[in-house]
Amino acid sequence: MKTVNVAILGTSFMGRAHSNGWNQVKKFFSPEVQPVLKVACGRDVERTKEFAENWGWEETANNWEEVIQRDDIDIIDISLPQHLHHKAAIAAAKAGKHIFCEKPMALELSKAEEMMDAIQNYDKVHYINHNYRRLPAVQLAKQMIEDGQIGRIFHWRGAYQQDWVVDPNFPLTWHLQKELSGSGAMGDLNSHSVDLAHFLVGDIKSVSALTTTFIKERPLPGKGAATFSAGSVSEEKGEVTVDDASMMLVEFENGAVGSFEATRFATGRRNHNTFEIYGSKGSLVFDLERMNEIQFYNNEDPQGQQGFRTILATDPSHAYMKNWWPTAHNIGYEHSFVHAMTDFLDAVGTNGNIEPNFNDGLKVMKVLDASLRSAENGQRVYL
Amino acid sequence: MKTVNVAILGTSFMGRAHSNGWNQVKKFFSPEVQPVLKVACGRDVERTKEFAENWGWEETANNWEEVIQRDDIDIIDISLPQHLHHKAAIAAAKAGKHIFCEKPMALELSKAEEMMDAIQNYDKVHYINHNYRRLPAVQLAKQMIEDGQIGRIFHWRGAYQQDWVVDPNFPLTWHLQKELSGSGAMGDLNSHSVDLAHFLVGDIKSVSALTTTFIKERPLPGKGAATFSAGSVSEEKGEVTVDDASMMLVEFENGAVGSFEATRFATGRRNHNTFEIYGSKGSLVFDLERMNEIQFYNNEDPQGQQGFRTILATDPSHAYMKNWWPTAHNIGYEHSFVHAMTDFLDAVGTNGNIEPNFNDGLKVMKVLDASLRSAENGQRVYL
Amino acid sequence: MKTVNVAILGTSFMGRAHSNGWNQVKKFFSPEVQPVLKVACGRDVERTKEFAENWGWEETANNWEEVIQRDDIDIIDISLPQHLHHKAAIAAAKAGKHIFCEKPMALELSKAEEMMDAIQNYDKVHYINHNYRRLPAVQLAKQMIEDGQIGRIFHWRGAYQQDWVVDPNFPLTWHLQKELSGSGAMGDLNSHSVDLAHFLVGDIKSVSALTTTFIKERPLPGKGAATFSAGSVSEEKGEVTVDDASMMLVEFENGAVGSFEATRFATGRRNHNTFEIYGSKGSLVFDLERMNEIQFYNNEDPQGQQGFRTILATDPSHAYMKNWWPTAHNIGYEHSFVHAMTDFLDAVGTNGNIEPNFNDGLKVMKVLDASLRSAENGQRVYL
Amino acid sequence: MKTVNVAILGTSFMGRAHSNGWNQVKKFFSPEVQPVLKVACGRDVERTKEFAENWGWEETANNWEEVIQRDDIDIIDISLPQHLHHKAAIAAAKAGKHIFCEKPMALELSKAEEMMDAIQNYDKVHYINHNYRRLPAVQLAKQMIEDGQIGRIFHWRGAYQQDWVVDPNFPLTWHLQKELSGSGAMGDLNSHSVDLAHFLVGDIKSVSALTTTFIKERPLPGKGAATFSAGSVSEEKGEVTVDDASMMLVEFENGAVGSFEATRFATGRRNHNTFEIYGSKGSLVFDLERMNEIQFYNNEDPQGQQGFRTILATDPSHAYMKNWWPTAHNIGYEHSFVHAMTDFLDAVGTNGNIEPNFNDGLKVMKVLDASLRSAENGQRVYL
Repeated sequence: MKTVNVAILGTSFMGRAHSNGWNQVKKFFSPEVQPVLKVACGRDVERTKEFAENWGWEETANNWEEVIQRDDIDIIDISLPQHLHHKAAIAAAKAGKHIFCEKPMALELSKAEEMMDAIQNYDKVHYINHNYRRLPAVQLAKQMIEDGQIGRIFHWRGAYQQDWVVDPNFPLTWHLQKELSGSGAMGDLNSHSVDLAHFLVGDIKSVSALTTTFIKERPLPGKGAATFSAGSVSEEKGEVTVDDASMMLVEFENGAVGSFEATRFATGRRNHNTFEIYGSKGSLVFDLERMNEIQFYNNEDPQGQQGFRTILATDPSHAYMKNWWPTAHNIGYEHSFVHAMTDFLDAVGTNGNIEPNFNDGLKVMKVLDASLRSAENGQRVYL
Repeated sequence: MKTVNVAILGTSFMGRAHSNGWNQVKKFFSPEVQPVLKVACGRDVERTKEFAENWGWEETANNWEEVIQRDDIDIIDISLPQHLHHKAAIAAAKAGKHIFCEKPMALELSKAEEMMDAIQNYDKVHYINHNYRRLPAVQLAKQMIEDGQIGRIFHWRGAYQQDWVVDPNFPLTWHLQKELSGSGAMGDLNSHSVDLAHFLVGDIKSVSALTTTFIKERPLPGKGAATFSAGSVSEEKGEVTVDDASMMLVEFENGAVGSFEATRFATGRRNHNTFEIYGSKGSLVFDLERMNEIQFYNNEDPQGQQGFRTILATDPSHAYMKNWWPTAHNIGYEHSFVHAMTDFLDAVGTNGNIEPNFNDGLKVMKVLDASLRSAENGQRVYL
Repeated sequence: MKTVNVAILGTSFMGRAHSNGWNQVKKFFSPEVQPVLKVACGRDVERTKEFAENWGWEETANNWEEVIQRDDIDIIDISLPQHLHHKAAIAAAKAGKHIFCEKPMALELSKAEEMMDAIQNYDKVHYINHNYRRLPAVQLAKQMIEDGQIGRIFHWRGAYQQDWVVDPNFPLTWHLQKELSGSGAMGDLNSHSVDLAHFLVGDIKSVSALTTTFIKERPLPGKGAATFSAGSVSEEKGEVTVDDASMMLVEFENGAVGSFEATRFATGRRNHNTFEIYGSKGSLVFDLERMNEIQFYNNEDPQGQQGFRTILATDPSHAYMKNWWPTAHNIGYEHSFVHAMTDFLDAVGTNGNIEPNFNDGLKVMKVLDASLRSAENGQRVYL
Repeated sequence: MKTVNVAILGTSFMGRAHSNGWNQVKKFFSPEVQPVLKVACGRDVERTKEFAENWGWEETANNWEEVIQRDDIDIIDISLPQHLHHKAAIAAAKAGKHIFCEKPMALELSKAEEMMDAIQNYDKVHYINHNYRRLPAVQLAKQMIEDGQIGRIFHWRGAYQQDWVVDPNFPLTWHLQKELSGSGAMGDLNSHSVDLAHFLVGDIKSVSALTTTFIKERPLPGKGAATFSAGSVSEEKGEVTVDDASMMLVEFENGAVGSFEATRFATGRRNHNTFEIYGSKGSLVFDLERMNEIQFYNNEDPQGQQGFRTILATDPSHAYMKNWWPTAHNIGYEHSFVHAMTDFLDAVGTNGNIEPNFNDGLKVMKVLDASLRSAENGQRVYL
């Protein structure tokens, strides 16, 4: 069987999630080409060695620019900090690699456009990892929409709600600094939601937005504090330069309307990525905290017997599920990455395509950019 | 016990709901004054007689202007078609009556302002029946917010979703004609939501809105067709002149942000009036389709044991409930009217006050008016 | 329109619920005959007067034996304490009255059999008020089963769970004394569940049971303490002589199997009367705490799109609902009584029949009696 | 780091799940000893090779008796067909291996007792894989019970419901033949539930049971048909010799009572392993179809604010979760195996113990055996 060599750039949270994916895809799926876990690249020599050993990467490296230039590497997996996605992707594109890039595409629209320029007439595979498209429940939603079971779509009502920075003593991590993260809830969370809306409903025509920062100053992280959690903090304070919450109203090209709400201040919502889609023939409701389920309302069920039904999307008939376990043996978060990888490897093996790719990533960036402008000037922005 | 004479204007859906309320309040509650069901007033002589007999109104009348002038009437219950609220309320105010007025206050802001003018320095009770404030579950939410259990409020996320006009053959009833209804989902549904947001979160500072009409032309109602249901239709068509769906993003005076979504096109949602409130200490979620329940998340529960809990607001300790049945013997829609009436009668009997009154109704009208303007010009409107 | 005179015996919780029912049935329904609220009968003269005035009973009386003999009374409504059902029903039967009797039929099987004897070849209407049959959601379940949508029934899984005596200081009210209540959870709660199982699944062939009393001694009620709540208690203690919890496994005549669980010790379950029915073509799940809903699983939905759907049984097409409010304007506990009364009055007006009647009540008593025997001797009992 | 050599016997469903577990435990956890995937043993030479290659087993073998005798093997993983558990476990015990044995322990009690005899005074680790104990949500339940948060337990109400054989044309696979499976729903499903009840509530004192076989004859599997699914069938029929459904009522030693319901005929329930535990201070509800969640009712929450709260057991504070992903990034079915393996390896590395072991497995077998006897003779059986 044909193999392809993968180099992963980055060894943090996403480095782990991707490494697990490259391992599991070989065991549970049979993509057109098999990945070889060739090089793991991280800044810290010792930590990268441990990482590589744990996840089965054959070699380690500490300079990602050099790794990208290696002739024996087919796939560049960009799991770097977000502010480096842009630079790494352009380098990988110039080197003619297949690119598996974690979301968001870039910190700002102009950077994403440069990335797009770099892959004009590209014959390699490029992919932005909006992974939630590849949950079986979301795939089922897509298929039902395409089969016409939802009919004309009237409404998208989405929200991505978290609560990890509600505590005013949560430190000023990189997520809360514009130069490192581009934006806050908007880029981090709405990027997922907008991609799902593009996937399921269609292109967005206009946007009116509102953003806010509830807590404008926070303690700096203590020395050696973890990035994600409210660890030790310093006595010094710094300014939060991103949005804590971002809301949008949109018109879609097809006449549907939608709302989005992204926040890190929804106390009690840990990772509540939810959408409702209402159409003329049926409706769909999804919630990531119950990611194996989707609710479906069929307007054509007999009068008096209609209702939202909870479909457990774990049958062999559901996307990807026959490769895992028997019916109703649930899958988890990490499986979405494995699904992305099998499809990506199929695209690589067949000189094919995968979505969401850079085009789709750019489309998301355009909506977020328009939203930030709308939030600032108080006007509806047409894309 | 002191009694007060009530005259009801209108004998349709709201006429029934109010009549039931005036009857039940006497049996289940002990307000400061007891209502006497004195006069029922409707256009159709025969129908009004039947109505009065059924609900126990002592007399009938067919001209509401005259009824308002009667000296023996203390309370005017305005259950007339919405476009007449304004005229009847002003007449009642001039006649110095206590006014129990069904929502919405008026079809448009200028009319509501005229109503407001009519009750300057008024010493009688005036009330707009945003009845959902008086569900025990909503009262519990209010009390928890006032007690500080929710802390600083960050988010309101509301939606009032129905689906009764999804069918393009649903006729052009009065609800779909601007001159009879003022607006569509905005006035009908968002008025409820905005009143709840005012009650629970506070005043609104700015609004950005989007409205749409999905189906722009509909068959005229057939001869004698019912007002609410997709009965017989004529072959002729007419233009829908109101919004099918209305969405808003708002800033509250206290720094919270909110979103509202009102629609008659959420297939599968029959009467889905829902809100989420997220605060620094806790969160609340309500859904009218499960109106005896409210969900509460307590951020101060022990780490690892936190979660949204479903409170059945049917204990004797919950507002109004000790007057009904034992714990967990649920109440229904109509009970909210009885609760409004007992509080209204208490206000009448004590020369007191009740909320929401004309001031509160006007505040709602101002938000809806600003929203319609924002939707039209695409700009955030400050109130 | 023809009228019938009603006398109600009993002015406590059930007296209230029934009085409300007789009033509301006239306003919301059009049964074959109209009830006249003629006499309210209670032991306490003053209290009965107040009761009658509040609920609109024309006269009062204080000796129920005499009331039953009155020629001008057509319907005897037995809302007396449970230990008097038997005696009053036999008297009413001898007097040839229509009998509307609150559940349970009697405290023990032999008494119920005597009641049954008293109505041999009876041409009047008799009824035992297992009221939950008449919830629209339960009626929908019944209709779907009769229409064959559930197919061959395999399983009944029922539970009626409450928690009002978990506190060991809850006093020894009449509910906990065998001579006044016959049994505990078994008679009080399982009687409802068994009636529903008879209604929806069919007759029971055998039963294996287990009962327990978790708290065997309790304080006597304090002077003047309320019957239902943990009011003031005396220092003296008395023995609990009924079951706190009762569980049964049954075989139905039609080959289905079932389980029942009735308890007053399910902390957090206020009035959780729930059942699951699984059949070859579909399944149904009901929970009284969400009494306007029923869940339905259709095994004939397309593969991969199956799931339990939540039907809001509030459409005009659902039983009784077109007489109340528009779709999704929920009803409550008390409405089940009104539904019973309209059907009862129809039976009276047409010399017809209503179920559950004494035959059905007796059938329930036989199952409960067999269960108590099985629990005691540890053997499966065949009916 | 110290390593131990594992041999896996069996390459079917459980072979896959265990192999994945041995791989993942190395990547995500740091047990006291590291497993080396040494030998995979299956009957079919070719299939076993593929299996070993896929899952990273160093060698293959085709005779499990021989593998057990190998000196270089430390751990025997028994993933064989159920009827071979007994024989393999005894051989492994005689050979002095650490034993990781898939449930059920054996097909019948006498066999389990022989296994127990084989490990008298054993200084190696033995384990029966009732894997659901090791879900973080179940671990949380355990911890809350041990911490006294539930108080005195009154009730266990469990059910394990599936629906994969409702179709009468589902073939007579090994699961439906007593000589290959021991029993049906009783052994397959109730074994899980009884183990959970032992873990969470305590030992069982008596049992009354009912079993039934709804469909007594089925087509034989077609040639080469899969074991688990309704694949091709032969025209010949055979007798179903196990229970389709099994129900039990039990008394626990500590005074609690319980019910169990195991069935393969609960249409719509794919893998619905659920329990409710009611105690004097709180209650817990679990459902495997939402395995990341547990519901908790705290009787000590303030009056009027009590309710079942849904805890997402995915915080770093929840068992095993800090080794996976950030909060609310759900895990799935397979993770329970990884958790079992890390604890098993810790026990191996520390000469420790793990539960459930053979003692616990035997205890389950005793309850199931008593149940089958009770079901047959209709009498309560004391253990």
